[in-house]
Amino acid sequence: MGDLTSDDFPVHRPVATRWRDNDAYGHLNNAVYYELFDNAIDRWLTEATGTDWAGAPWLAVVAESGCRYLSEVRYPDPLVVGLAVTRVGTSSVTLRLGVFTPGGPVAAVGHWVQVFVDRDTRRPTPVPARIRTVLEAALV
Amino acid sequence: MGDLTSDDFPVHRPVATRWRDNDAYGHLNNAVYYELFDNAIDRWLTEATGTDWAGAPWLAVVAESGCRYLSEVRYPDPLVVGLAVTRVGTSSVTLRLGVFTPGGPVAAVGHWVQVFVDRDTRRPTPVPARIRTVLEAALV
Amino acid sequence: MGDLTSDDFPVHRPVATRWRDNDAYGHLNNAVYYELFDNAIDRWLTEATGTDWAGAPWLAVVAESGCRYLSEVRYPDPLVVGLAVTRVGTSSVTLRLGVFTPGGPVAAVGHWVQVFVDRDTRRPTPVPARIRTVLEAALV
Amino acid sequence: MGDLTSDDFPVHRPVATRWRDNDAYGHLNNAVYYELFDNAIDRWLTEATGTDWAGAPWLAVVAESGCRYLSEVRYPDPLVVGLAVTRVGTSSVTLRLGVFTPGGPVAAVGHWVQVFVDRDTRRPTPVPARIRTVLEAALV
Repeated sequence: MGDLTSDDFPVHRPVATRWRDNDAYGHLNNAVYYELFDNAIDRWLTEATGTDWAGAPWLAVVAESGCRYLSEVRYPDPLVVGLAVTRVGTSSVTLRLGVFTPGGPVAAVGHWVQVFVDRDTRRPTPVPARIRTVLEAALV
Repeated sequence: MGDLTSDDFPVHRPVATRWRDNDAYGHLNNAVYYELFDNAIDRWLTEATGTDWAGAPWLAVVAESGCRYLSEVRYPDPLVVGLAVTRVGTSSVTLRLGVFTPGGPVAAVGHWVQVFVDRDTRRPTPVPARIRTVLEAALV
Repeated sequence: MGDLTSDDFPVHRPVATRWRDNDAYGHLNNAVYYELFDNAIDRWLTEATGTDWAGAPWLAVVAESGCRYLSEVRYPDPLVVGLAVTRVGTSSVTLRLGVFTPGGPVAAVGHWVQVFVDRDTRRPTPVPARIRTVLEAALV
Repeated sequence: MGDLTSDDFPVHRPVATRWRDNDAYGHLNNAVYYELFDNAIDRWLTEATGTDWAGAPWLAVVAESGCRYLSEVRYPDPLVVGLAVTRVGTSSVTLRLGVFTPGGPVAAVGHWVQVFVDRDTRRPTPVPARIRTVLEAALV
């Protein structure tokens, strides 16, 4: 995965970091990458579909996540999360994510599986149609 | 407030910090103190009253908070939050909080006003009786 | 302080929030406001002066912070932090901060005292000249 | 991995969660699991070896992390992180992690690769001997 470049991600989202995101090593804490991934996915789909995630009849829960940290990044670097959809199933979506500075190498590669479940029963429910359309346009 | 000692706080709660709580200066980030205050108050009242905060018909919202940072603390120092109730009103409670290591000086002094509001109307509602009893026992 | 409007803050900085910033009450967690305050101050002064906070011979530590929460805000509201400097001392600066959506009422009012200390001795050191100039331009 | 039980982890560490760790879905935010993993590893090795992570001549950086979320947990559940070492290399260690309540099923399974690097050169450096001894005792 170290050979990926920013061109391998069809969607690019700038993400803002904070002083608190750096830990005592002076670089972005490992858990913060997941906040950035979550945020990039959520903001992207919200802007493209107008979805109200907090009020929808379903929840979009994370079933699996992962990250390979290839080189250091830190606040206040201007960071971008790149998104690529690798699979859209009936109720779930799998994405590959990249973290990089504009023009820079891919500093981290993420993996993300999100499942749509009914808010009450917590059983899988189909990916909403408007969201599916946006996801499929970013398939690689 | 620099003359306060741990004896000025009738309730002592150990709080656990994390690697991520230290920022690039190698000490507890200023915002983390508020997570510790919130946690100490919440855990104390939950254990004493069995309250289910997430499911109650009211919300306990923070109306005001503040902190004076007197000396540095850091993960993995064993930290304690001291709690003293300074006022119990009809719908609100005011607390003074201290952060210290066991036997050490007070490293930070906090101020906290929490208001009980109806979950639906968001209008003030009386402090629940069981919670009031516990709060009043810690009045200074 | 409830009478303040966004016009009372000479500097406006948009701040980005995250899904994780909302707590179980579905609104911005009380501690997150401090991350936003810190970030707005830091980004503002960094862009205006080119300061490398992590590498400077001094630390800018928070001596005091506070917040009054007047109305609820939540991710993904587009939030702005307003900044007003109320005092520049030899080694310290005091700011008033506001949180609002563009065109909306002030939802929270913050208070912030930052002190510059020598990295090694941790003794107060004068506010760096370039930073002082920027701060004084925002005095109210 | 859904067949793992708490008995599959030789080391058990209780971890403390906070009100802020629950997100708007009322359960532990996905990124928080990584803070808990990091904390459990760090506290375990610190107590067993007396290591000062912030001051050591090396850094222990995370090269890879991952998590499968099997069932929901939330603050204030009493949570335990189980740790199992699956490989100790020259400069790196690989762990499997579990999240569970005492006596409950494994609610999440984590994966973690930590690499020891020289603080100055950032080149891999051998796992310190005292730490290696503790890690090897938890090999599965």
